[in-house]
Amino acid sequence: MRIALLGGTGDIGEGLALRWALDTDYKLVVGSRDPEKAERAADHYREQVESRGKKATLSGASNTDAVVGADVVVLSVPPEYVSNIVDTVVVELADDAIVVCPAVSMNRDGDGFHYDPPAEVDSVTAIAHRGTPDAVATVGAFHNLPAGRLSNLDAPLNIDTVVLADDVEAAETVIEVAESIDGLRAIRGGPLANAPEVEGITPLLINVAMNNAELHDLGVKFD
Amino acid sequence: MRIALLGGTGDIGEGLALRWALDTDYKLVVGSRDPEKAERAADHYREQVESRGKKATLSGASNTDAVVGADVVVLSVPPEYVSNIVDTVVVELADDAIVVCPAVSMNRDGDGFHYDPPAEVDSVTAIAHRGTPDAVATVGAFHNLPAGRLSNLDAPLNIDTVVLADDVEAAETVIEVAESIDGLRAIRGGPLANAPEVEGITPLLINVAMNNAELHDLGVKFD
Repeated sequence: MRIALLGGTGDIGEGLALRWALDTDYKLVVGSRDPEKAERAADHYREQVESRGKKATLSGASNTDAVVGADVVVLSVPPEYVSNIVDTVVVELADDAIVVCPAVSMNRDGDGFHYDPPAEVDSVTAIAHRGTPDAVATVGAFHNLPAGRLSNLDAPLNIDTVVLADDVEAAETVIEVAESIDGLRAIRGGPLANAPEVEGITPLLINVAMNNAELHDLGVKFD
Repeated sequence: MRIALLGGTGDIGEGLALRWALDTDYKLVVGSRDPEKAERAADHYREQVESRGKKATLSGASNTDAVVGADVVVLSVPPEYVSNIVDTVVVELADDAIVVCPAVSMNRDGDGFHYDPPAEVDSVTAIAHRGTPDAVATVGAFHNLPAGRLSNLDAPLNIDTVVLADDVEAAETVIEVAESIDGLRAIRGGPLANAPEVEGITPLLINVAMNNAELHDLGVKFD
């Protein structure tokens, strides 16, 4: 399994890269607009994982180079860059690649954080889907992961991620990839059209953390 | 503590009545448009609880009579009835009463269930708030409880409910009332304006249950 983490120098990309590097033998490519920055991040992640006695296959590349040969491409970028990054890398996507979108669009006011879906479609996941060719499956996943905890390899996870896809086979691949991370359970959320309710959990998690001193860097569990 | 459960013959009202009757010494009044139906439901709930060796103070009344003297009034009615039931009972509300709204507005299409907030305000909780006098605090809570599990006194809960309120004191009262139910943790979600993200979890819980054979009658936990 070869996974490209576009925007993989950001917080959610860092966490996923570290966890997969520690818990699997996947080939991981950290993507960035700046390939040198990507290489430095990959070196940094590798050191952390190898200091734990685990060999890691981690490299850095430009976002476009990172997707070449990738089985799974994770768009770990801010929501406003999703459309652009898909357009940038689409020519390099393998026909059977799976594009995974974890981005969530939020705004903030005096009360807290609020889900702020894109105007033209109903979720950021749908924006990713709109930009990919028909042959490439788009999957929504990893929307509600606590970035700090994910990047802290000493922190147990014990949380869920909801996987959304119109392509059932692609969903099963992403479920397998997600559950290869210790303590992460992947559950089926149905088609991409069900993404808004999943993306909407992220502002709620921040609101809960802001209003409960003992709760921070939260994930969600369905039980 | 005296709690009125308006629409208390419905599923979420039944579950809350049974749990409070079993786990507390609250005075519980089941409200319904039809007082005889309310009395029959109260008798039925009392029998279930007393068969477990717990004395319960449960009576039935019309919705209007149920709120007289109630410290907490739970609007356990379908979302489309929230505005009307608040209008119906408002003259009987004590000045220091707290109105609790657990209702969620959803629609369903071929993909699954979707959050469907009221057109004129951004949540059903806000509709309840709009109809109550300024002196009466409105609190959003109990939005995401699995009704079947709540009503099954043999089923452990071990789930969370998010409490939303502009009035911090009222929020603390509802947190105490919620946590008097064994296995239910109440967490602060901030002001009422943060209700949409909480209400939106309910359709997600149904989508998850529809798409995962091993998961049903789900609640949510923040961890």
